[in-house]
Amino acid sequence: MKPLLQDIRNTPLLWLLVLVPVVLVAQTLAHEAHTLLFVLSVGAIVPLAALLSRATEAVAARTGDTIGGLLNATLGNLTELVIALTALRAGQYVLVKASIVGAIVTNSLFMLGASLLLGGLRHHVQEYNRNSARLQGGMLFMATIAILVPSVLAEGDGGVSRAAFTQSLSLGLSVVLIVTYALGLLFSLKTHSELFAAAGHDEHGEEEWPMPLALGTLAGVTVLVALVSEVFVESVQQAATTLGITPAFVGVIIVALVGAAAEMVSAFAAARKDKLDLSVGIALGSAVQIALFVAPVLVLCSYVLGPSPMDLQFWRGAVAMMLISAVTASLVTNAGRSAWFIGALIITIYVIFAMTLYLLPPPA
Amino acid sequence: MKPLLQDIRNTPLLWLLVLVPVVLVAQTLAHEAHTLLFVLSVGAIVPLAALLSRATEAVAARTGDTIGGLLNATLGNLTELVIALTALRAGQYVLVKASIVGAIVTNSLFMLGASLLLGGLRHHVQEYNRNSARLQGGMLFMATIAILVPSVLAEGDGGVSRAAFTQSLSLGLSVVLIVTYALGLLFSLKTHSELFAAAGHDEHGEEEWPMPLALGTLAGVTVLVALVSEVFVESVQQAATTLGITPAFVGVIIVALVGAAAEMVSAFAAARKDKLDLSVGIALGSAVQIALFVAPVLVLCSYVLGPSPMDLQFWRGAVAMMLISAVTASLVTNAGRSAWFIGALIITIYVIFAMTLYLLPPPA
Amino acid sequence: MKPLLQDIRNTPLLWLLVLVPVVLVAQTLAHEAHTLLFVLSVGAIVPLAALLSRATEAVAARTGDTIGGLLNATLGNLTELVIALTALRAGQYVLVKASIVGAIVTNSLFMLGASLLLGGLRHHVQEYNRNSARLQGGMLFMATIAILVPSVLAEGDGGVSRAAFTQSLSLGLSVVLIVTYALGLLFSLKTHSELFAAAGHDEHGEEEWPMPLALGTLAGVTVLVALVSEVFVESVQQAATTLGITPAFVGVIIVALVGAAAEMVSAFAAARKDKLDLSVGIALGSAVQIALFVAPVLVLCSYVLGPSPMDLQFWRGAVAMMLISAVTASLVTNAGRSAWFIGALIITIYVIFAMTLYLLPPPA
Repeated sequence: MKPLLQDIRNTPLLWLLVLVPVVLVAQTLAHEAHTLLFVLSVGAIVPLAALLSRATEAVAARTGDTIGGLLNATLGNLTELVIALTALRAGQYVLVKASIVGAIVTNSLFMLGASLLLGGLRHHVQEYNRNSARLQGGMLFMATIAILVPSVLAEGDGGVSRAAFTQSLSLGLSVVLIVTYALGLLFSLKTHSELFAAAGHDEHGEEEWPMPLALGTLAGVTVLVALVSEVFVESVQQAATTLGITPAFVGVIIVALVGAAAEMVSAFAAARKDKLDLSVGIALGSAVQIALFVAPVLVLCSYVLGPSPMDLQFWRGAVAMMLISAVTASLVTNAGRSAWFIGALIITIYVIFAMTLYLLPPPA
Repeated sequence: MKPLLQDIRNTPLLWLLVLVPVVLVAQTLAHEAHTLLFVLSVGAIVPLAALLSRATEAVAARTGDTIGGLLNATLGNLTELVIALTALRAGQYVLVKASIVGAIVTNSLFMLGASLLLGGLRHHVQEYNRNSARLQGGMLFMATIAILVPSVLAEGDGGVSRAAFTQSLSLGLSVVLIVTYALGLLFSLKTHSELFAAAGHDEHGEEEWPMPLALGTLAGVTVLVALVSEVFVESVQQAATTLGITPAFVGVIIVALVGAAAEMVSAFAAARKDKLDLSVGIALGSAVQIALFVAPVLVLCSYVLGPSPMDLQFWRGAVAMMLISAVTASLVTNAGRSAWFIGALIITIYVIFAMTLYLLPPPA
Repeated sequence: MKPLLQDIRNTPLLWLLVLVPVVLVAQTLAHEAHTLLFVLSVGAIVPLAALLSRATEAVAARTGDTIGGLLNATLGNLTELVIALTALRAGQYVLVKASIVGAIVTNSLFMLGASLLLGGLRHHVQEYNRNSARLQGGMLFMATIAILVPSVLAEGDGGVSRAAFTQSLSLGLSVVLIVTYALGLLFSLKTHSELFAAAGHDEHGEEEWPMPLALGTLAGVTVLVALVSEVFVESVQQAATTLGITPAFVGVIIVALVGAAAEMVSAFAAARKDKLDLSVGIALGSAVQIALFVAPVLVLCSYVLGPSPMDLQFWRGAVAMMLISAVTASLVTNAGRSAWFIGALIITIYVIFAMTLYLLPPPA
């Protein structure tokens, strides 16, 4: 336990872990204080996500390059996945879909833009490896297109046959996406791992965790994330109404920022050290993983866990936001050079999205 | 005739030519066996297309660089043109439009993706001439945008004035596209031919055909394609219903794969020989030609051959598929580098399109 | 006054200034001759715009690099701004929005395309600075996306709450855009001015104007533009009906070509001298300024000058045209190389837009 406690002592973000017992106790004592529970659960998920990411890396460090890479890639969005699974079990499909949209938008606009901005404030012009950035930009574009096909091609008047069509298309698409994701792992970890070398995770220079501690932390924290997520999912709707926030804003902006907080810390630190390859790799890689892995897994899980099957039909505005995010990220990383204003422009688009979702009148 | 017969003997694909008399006989004997006629006609068009492409090259080889290039460029999609003209005469405008969509999608996704995949399975990373690929990617993007303008800008509620508007816009657009195509030939064959050098057709190392044989084969095979196309167009609707395939799937996927089979053989062979310039040139060049030449020629011909003028208004899903194909192909070839997974990703998008069209409920 | 008169004597375009008194006299004498007034006012605005641009440069030349650059950047689209403000005061919001759309489309397609074509007719292949072109292409793409967010995300059925939403979103967006524009000036004039060096205005080698003359001309010509704009805005609707031109065509094509005439002269001259950096900088820079500065200023001014607040909701076709223009300009300038056919292709897209707007049936 020593390395774990030491890490917690050295990382101020992890001191928020104290909120975890608080939120679980508050849940039993003040079941109806939705706004309080909402704020506490958001505050508790952030350090848990950071710890989860630390434990994943610790396990990965002990298991060698290929399996470690596989773990890092597969568990990289574990927090998002656990939150979405909790919402799925509660049948809150709008929240699940909003969190998918939010994860793609937040990773490819906010995380990328803030990395370029923070890096650019310290370094005049930053160059990075165009070839791997371009590859990841292309992968993000194609993964986003793939996940959006049912929404774009299946539009039209409703009806029973159309709903059945959307459902079977989403199921088939999910299988295709997971196969593509597996091929992508084969590509990035096995046949062409040298192209992704720079995108590997940063050296921590910290003491390595022993395997039992790493695995135990991974398991324990996942359970804690699941417990806190339940409080979060139960309280979010009521709290949003009380605070006057639209559900779309909560799902797309708040959940995504909370879930990605840990990765952002790594991406921003790398950007300030002029390692933009790493920042771009974390941001785009995570967005790709949401589209190719998390989203289809959620569709498949909905057949087992959810009250009814979930499809991959997104609302018009969500389609536009995801497409704009993917095209922007692809175009920008295509250049392989950056300065602070590029980051500011990307964040501007993100801010405009957030503003739109904030102002959006709730559906009548 | 000797070189022709020798070519047939050496090319297993051409042995399928035996299906040509079979389908023509079957047509008179079993007029109602739609499914059989459909399968046979598909099987007969593939070798005819290959032979047509061989004869075009043979004529081109005898007529010098510029006229030869002109012939290769203009007759490169002759099979698609003849099939579409047959459907046009029969008034099957949905099939005609679907075959335009299919030709663009198949060339710029399937042919390109499979070339990159097949090339990438043999070569670790493939580099190709970025400048000409980028030029062709840009041309494809702009040609696709041009052909889609009526569908994108003319949307809205119907009415007589709107139909008349779409029709005159399509006519004007067709003239503009053909002028642009002529300028493009001037550019690629005359003023800037050196940029397209690599995209010229592959050396066959085979015996050259004498001119009369080449011209005779070209004429004779065109007639045969027209005859078989007629069987195909007549049987396709009934056969699709029997086989439970949607008409959109037949038009966009099957017709396009059949029509482009011969070019695919060339493109794939070049990719495996690490000549990706050539593969990219064939795939994108063919897609550009469909948009700038075949589509407007079909509109103009509809005034003479068809029961009523045809416009260039495509259905929403078709617009999305063409745009996605063109943007994907432009973005990918922009890089000038490829590895197998890039090809796999492009094919994934194609597979998702095919799956969507296959599952699409028929319009009520 | 000598340098001013000398400039007028040497520039045939400025001889059209004789139309300025003509149009103002005609306005009082023949108030109802709408078509005549429309043609005269168009003819008078062109030389005024050229003179305005000359006076701006003269002031800028006297005020040092940073303030001069600021003036050039801010007053670069002064003609468009004055025309739009006149239309705004008259409550003609459709014309105001059409002129925003037109300015973006005309700058990023016609001005860019004609520069590449004219340059390409004289030079076989033209190379230009990819890094700054790419930066400006990216800025144009993101600026266009930003201005289009309300139109794309706020679509849906109307209703009071939706109109209020669109209005507050447009107001918030305008503030964000102006802040972004200010950051962009900081970037291009202060922190990273070296990246934009080539995009500065061309040397004229002409006699420098003394400051009072420059300032006086700037003020006087702005007043004249305002007066003539009033004639133009009053006559345009009636004249369009008489001439059988759609209002969309007038707003998007004619107003934009008139307003940008002076900049086009500079951009085309630079292209023919093989200074494509300069041409691309003028064309894209001007389009960016419309999106980030002119459009939000018009929204803010509508609260003071207009009969009611104006929003940034554009009609579907306008959204498509702006997006296509921005993506095309970004993709093309990404390459950093050009030949005449690229220019011809871009102009083709512009011609197709113009044709569509010309044929568009008026809304019932």
